[in-house]
Amino acid sequence: MLTDIEIAQNAKMKDINKIAASLGISSDEIDPYGHYKAKISDSVMERLKDKKDGKLILVTAVNPTPAGEGKTTVSIGLGEAMSQIGKKAIIALREPSLGPVFGIKGGAAGGGYSQVVPMEDINLHFTGDMHAITSANNLMCAMLDNSIQQGNELNIDPRRIQVKRCLDMNDRALRNIINSLGGKLNGIPREDHFCITVASEVMAILCLASDLFDLRERLGNILVAYTFDGQPVYCKDIKANGAMTVLLKEAIKPNLVQTLENTPAIMHGGPFANIAHGCNSVRATKTALKLADYTITEAGFGSDLGAEKFMDIKCRFAGLAPSCVVLVSTVRSMKYNGGVAKEDLKEENLEALKKGSVNLGAHIDNLKKFGVPVVVAINHFYADTQAEIDYIEQYCKEKGADFAVTKCFAEGGKGGTQLAQKVVDACEKENNFHCLYDLDMPVYEKIETIAKEIYGADGVDFTKEARNAIDGFIKLGADKMPVCMAKTQYSLSDNPKLLGKPENFRITVSSASLSNGAGFIVCQTGSIMTMPGLSKSPAAYRIDIDENGNTVGLF
Amino acid sequence: MLTDIEIAQNAKMKDINKIAASLGISSDEIDPYGHYKAKISDSVMERLKDKKDGKLILVTAVNPTPAGEGKTTVSIGLGEAMSQIGKKAIIALREPSLGPVFGIKGGAAGGGYSQVVPMEDINLHFTGDMHAITSANNLMCAMLDNSIQQGNELNIDPRRIQVKRCLDMNDRALRNIINSLGGKLNGIPREDHFCITVASEVMAILCLASDLFDLRERLGNILVAYTFDGQPVYCKDIKANGAMTVLLKEAIKPNLVQTLENTPAIMHGGPFANIAHGCNSVRATKTALKLADYTITEAGFGSDLGAEKFMDIKCRFAGLAPSCVVLVSTVRSMKYNGGVAKEDLKEENLEALKKGSVNLGAHIDNLKKFGVPVVVAINHFYADTQAEIDYIEQYCKEKGADFAVTKCFAEGGKGGTQLAQKVVDACEKENNFHCLYDLDMPVYEKIETIAKEIYGADGVDFTKEARNAIDGFIKLGADKMPVCMAKTQYSLSDNPKLLGKPENFRITVSSASLSNGAGFIVCQTGSIMTMPGLSKSPAAYRIDIDENGNTVGLF
Repeated sequence: MLTDIEIAQNAKMKDINKIAASLGISSDEIDPYGHYKAKISDSVMERLKDKKDGKLILVTAVNPTPAGEGKTTVSIGLGEAMSQIGKKAIIALREPSLGPVFGIKGGAAGGGYSQVVPMEDINLHFTGDMHAITSANNLMCAMLDNSIQQGNELNIDPRRIQVKRCLDMNDRALRNIINSLGGKLNGIPREDHFCITVASEVMAILCLASDLFDLRERLGNILVAYTFDGQPVYCKDIKANGAMTVLLKEAIKPNLVQTLENTPAIMHGGPFANIAHGCNSVRATKTALKLADYTITEAGFGSDLGAEKFMDIKCRFAGLAPSCVVLVSTVRSMKYNGGVAKEDLKEENLEALKKGSVNLGAHIDNLKKFGVPVVVAINHFYADTQAEIDYIEQYCKEKGADFAVTKCFAEGGKGGTQLAQKVVDACEKENNFHCLYDLDMPVYEKIETIAKEIYGADGVDFTKEARNAIDGFIKLGADKMPVCMAKTQYSLSDNPKLLGKPENFRITVSSASLSNGAGFIVCQTGSIMTMPGLSKSPAAYRIDIDENGNTVGLF
Repeated sequence: MLTDIEIAQNAKMKDINKIAASLGISSDEIDPYGHYKAKISDSVMERLKDKKDGKLILVTAVNPTPAGEGKTTVSIGLGEAMSQIGKKAIIALREPSLGPVFGIKGGAAGGGYSQVVPMEDINLHFTGDMHAITSANNLMCAMLDNSIQQGNELNIDPRRIQVKRCLDMNDRALRNIINSLGGKLNGIPREDHFCITVASEVMAILCLASDLFDLRERLGNILVAYTFDGQPVYCKDIKANGAMTVLLKEAIKPNLVQTLENTPAIMHGGPFANIAHGCNSVRATKTALKLADYTITEAGFGSDLGAEKFMDIKCRFAGLAPSCVVLVSTVRSMKYNGGVAKEDLKEENLEALKKGSVNLGAHIDNLKKFGVPVVVAINHFYADTQAEIDYIEQYCKEKGADFAVTKCFAEGGKGGTQLAQKVVDACEKENNFHCLYDLDMPVYEKIETIAKEIYGADGVDFTKEARNAIDGFIKLGADKMPVCMAKTQYSLSDNPKLLGKPENFRITVSSASLSNGAGFIVCQTGSIMTMPGLSKSPAAYRIDIDENGNTVGLF
């Protein structure tokens, strides 16, 4: 069995100019980065602006389990399978963050025979988008501290700074620091924090901006601090948003790559799916819709987080509507939800499967609340038995969802043709897509709506701190924004240990923050880690060059 | 008068494939980054390894003054002028750091009609080399703190950590911090520091590494900490150098761009010229020597810092020998050295010129100690009078140096043809290039040799701290390394206020550190700032996009 990187290194990639040409894009309309990656110029969208959009297919999943569901693998395999059944398709994914590559196993470029390539480049620096975001965010933070140091004309209260520096690195030492030590020339000491780059609001903004001018305006609207009088200070007040926009000029352009089977893929942007909305960029998705008849995209974590935000934040802001949703699950993950330990998942266990499938059922029900057709994709694992698969198929039928088995990891696009056909059919079905709530709804009601309708909670409790924060945002006039829930991905509830379909519970919003430039209020339930750490034996120990200078140890 | 960015934006650039072709490089041998930048693949060096090297010309300068000498502008103009007089030339420069672009005026891509383009890209993210170095350095630091947190098997003393995190940003708040706060999960609190990326040892190593394998070995040799028992801990001990090498795989490849007149230019690497050696990469220079008959390169600050290190560190390690040295000066800077205030430099003042020219004379004398022909280039400013220029010409003749006036800022290559001809002639002169000292010389003697021979000092004093540090390095067996002096660039002495040719002074080495991977001992005289700050009105305030989305405010 070859590893992912070995399969990727053996790929027969086509020159990126040829991939572009297959989409009707000329060499002048892309900026190549090496021979197999490119950025798509703004001129492409300009040229195609009156062309009819293709169909948009969202790939989401049940709650993640340690067994791994393979959502990205299915997304890639589905795109390839579309080509195999004669449809013109493109894949629009998030781009991976560098930090976790050196932490735990796993980039975000698919797996097995359904991968996006060049896998190494994509998982490392790619086209530099993450670095540009890091730079823009940190320029803002440096200018904010500089404004305080150089006389503090804006009367900024250093105890109420709202933004964090960032690095695309798993580095727990930077979670909580005291900066500006060492005397008068070095600033005024204060508590500070780093987050990982993908958790920065700049990332969320890049992914929601409609163009360079909208980007500049959104960056200017970041709430960076409060004054000693409690007044908000925005990024435009410290005059950072112009220079930040210049730093992001190339990063805002979507990146074109290909799958192992030479299907075009756009990978662009990758915000967290808890404290942000967890989808690739609006520009990438809109570009993809002009370039192909079917655009396959995905959202982070399970449908309770990624898909809900895809609908209520991304689609709402960008005026997009999915033609159908693919819900990825596995026999193994349903058994895990039914109480089977990870090491026993290879054994047939219909009882546990039945018990755990309520998790799948809940996700189907949730997605139907958005008025879109749902196709369940069971990502096949070699130990799955026919009886188990039959059970899930029957269960999906009862729930009113279409069903397909995929073998994209082992077979590439060939393993996804059944799913591809179901998706094509689903896209022609009745579709009443709508958001879950209106923006005019009071903030607390929006939160309750998501908690009750999507999580199945009985209600929402707020800590005093959270209530104060939200009331403050309402006072700032930020109450017409969608709500971005930061919740554990492992459960439909806010308790990661409650698997299956939890009932009779309330969730607790422990704190809230305002992503004013991105345009949403973030509600945290429990503590969400925005700066990961390295493990005792991090992947970096094994990532190296071999005697020929080739990269080894990237999974 | 157009600004630098306006001139650069009007440039008629050739596709980078054409620039490569002019050097005999095929499209397969470069990785394009957009249409006007590329990385040169390792296969080029492999193909040309038996070809005879061209001539190497080092451009250096007198001590910098606030009037600006225009060393990079002369380097670029000289390269263009070489083409104009029918010689095949290439320019090999350092690449700019992003941080200072947002701080004070000035990228490092030349000026006026002698610029390297695309100027915006080069001054912003370019091909991502700085970001890769930032990532590699910070991965090392994260792994070091992680090693302490996860049981500290290496017995690392957190009070004796030798490496700093870095950012390519002017951010004084990060000079001195306390990290790892917040309890058991967040590490063990300790004092920490950030430097700007170009000040990291990783940058110096990238610029001195002969290939990817040498890079890996040098990274492994970085002295990252000491144990509680006082034993050295190297980067290879924390198993970071393999992953760091993977992060630097693309960054080690030289970058190809062009001048406004389409002369090929390689811009690659840019270490500080005080705490590091201040030259572009060995790989870039070696590649350039295979591609053209004349390679124009430069070193940081004045000849007392950049040129001395170019000879004693870079040329020594890489087996290079300059065919001649161009020493850039201006009438203005000599008058400034003669005591004229910056605002009065436009007035003719032969008395001050005569007084200040001893600075030029000292640099000529110093360069002759390396056994190489010297050509003085007076970078012309409109207010210079003929009498002033005549004086310097006569002075150079007496000092045994060739002389030329350049007008490259205003005229591009045409303004450098006189210099180009003098350089071509000088390259045929007698050349007895040698380093200033042998590596076998005891460390303290090396330091004294540089101080006496180059700075004109009577001797060297050491603080107790510096002596302890140096004695420690000798004990580690690091005494056969060259010495890298970190000294103010504004004076030949270690006191920035002593202009001209200071006499009757001693210098004080206040501290010392070991760049064990790069391969030199750094001696600090006075305090050298390795993390700049932003001014009260930083350039970032004016850097923005205009109504057409074009960048403005980059100088």
